Amino acid sequence: MSTDNALTAEQILSATEDVLRRFGPAKATVVDVARTLGVSHGSVYRFFPSKAALREAVTERWLAQAHDELRLIATETGPAAERLHRWLTTLFAAKRRKAFDDPQLFATYMTLVGENSHTVDTHIGTLIAQIADIVRDGVERKEFHPAHTDSTAHTNSAAHIGPTARAVFEATAHFHDPAHAASWSDPAADERFEALWRLILGGLATRA
Amino acid sequence: MSTDNALTAEQILSATEDVLRRFGPAKATVVDVARTLGVSHGSVYRFFPSKAALREAVTERWLAQAHDELRLIATETGPAAERLHRWLTTLFAAKRRKAFDDPQLFATYMTLVGENSHTVDTHIGTLIAQIADIVRDGVERKEFHPAHTDSTAHTNSAAHIGPTARAVFEATAHFHDPAHAASWSDPAADERFEALWRLILGGLATRA
Repeated sequence: MSTDNALTAEQILSATEDVLRRFGPAKATVVDVARTLGVSHGSVYRFFPSKAALREAVTERWLAQAHDELRLIATETGPAAERLHRWLTTLFAAKRRKAFDDPQLFATYMTLVGENSHTVDTHIGTLIAQIADIVRDGVERKEFHPAHTDSTAHTNSAAHIGPTARAVFEATAHFHDPAHAASWSDPAADERFEALWRLILGGLATRA
Repeated sequence: MSTDNALTAEQILSATEDVLRRFGPAKATVVDVARTLGVSHGSVYRFFPSKAALREAVTERWLAQAHDELRLIATETGPAAERLHRWLTTLFAAKRRKAFDDPQLFATYMTLVGENSHTVDTHIGTLIAQIADIVRDGVERKEFHPAHTDSTAHTNSAAHIGPTARAVFEATAHFHDPAHAASWSDPAADERFEALWRLILGGLATRA
């Protein structure tokens, strides 16, 4: 229970998650959220002007859960290969935790993710930009030579970084895209990720 | 219409696909299939002892549709990089055709695929074995040096071929796994595939 005065957006989002977990995405309402908090539904609408806005905000928060940890890795200054490996395993671990620890909430968010494709696109854009930061560092450190991403190019110009970062993200979809969640409980999943990682690392380190 | 005597398994599977397309996977029955062919349902059961066996067989046939073309590429003797690229683009084109040309049947098969995970595993095993054949040729031709798939290894022993082939298959999931079908209509899909291909090719060509 909160008093109306002390109400924060974060409290509303946490209560929304509780309500989604209890009632499922089809039945959860703003009134349920307000009741959980002991406030009027008008108080909720002051933060989130519609049910759609509330659902979008809670989806965004869920997607962004591992972002801080990932952003930290992307902005470090050590060897790029080690950082990219750690970034990818951190993302995989975060997604796996979400899928296994609370499968019902995970399924709920899959529904919300389907409703908010713009939010998902922004999320993916943020992640690819972080990979691009690490790849750029790797090129500057002479660890990576991903000129092969443009076969007509003679230099490692900045124009290749974006497509390379996207290729790394898509190449590892098996180990972060919820569409593949069913395969994450495979006891060989980590070993398979490492085989994939070595393939990607080899590709990044190739001289054109 | 067929006479009972001339009935073949292939005819039954084609009729089953028609019935699935018309009634959907939930409502399609063996009796519908028999009626379409103008035979008794007993005649159908002589080929497929149960409705489950029939659904499995039609799923297998659907999954295997591009297999012959892919197997041919895998058993050629030219440069491995060109063959692997052609193998992957052929697979992507076949999957994309299935998804776009007949979306309703595609959705139907997604249901059947969910019911027959063993059939899918066998299908994937066959595809990875074909990639392994090409990768093995590439290693023998000194085009590929994928020893990096086992960081403790000093040789390109046969033991690395399997994990490398699986890594190539998983790295390209974005461009053949039906879970990603929604992104295949992206006008940049081919360009993104090529960026991914160059990353993979770089990884395969890397010296450990």
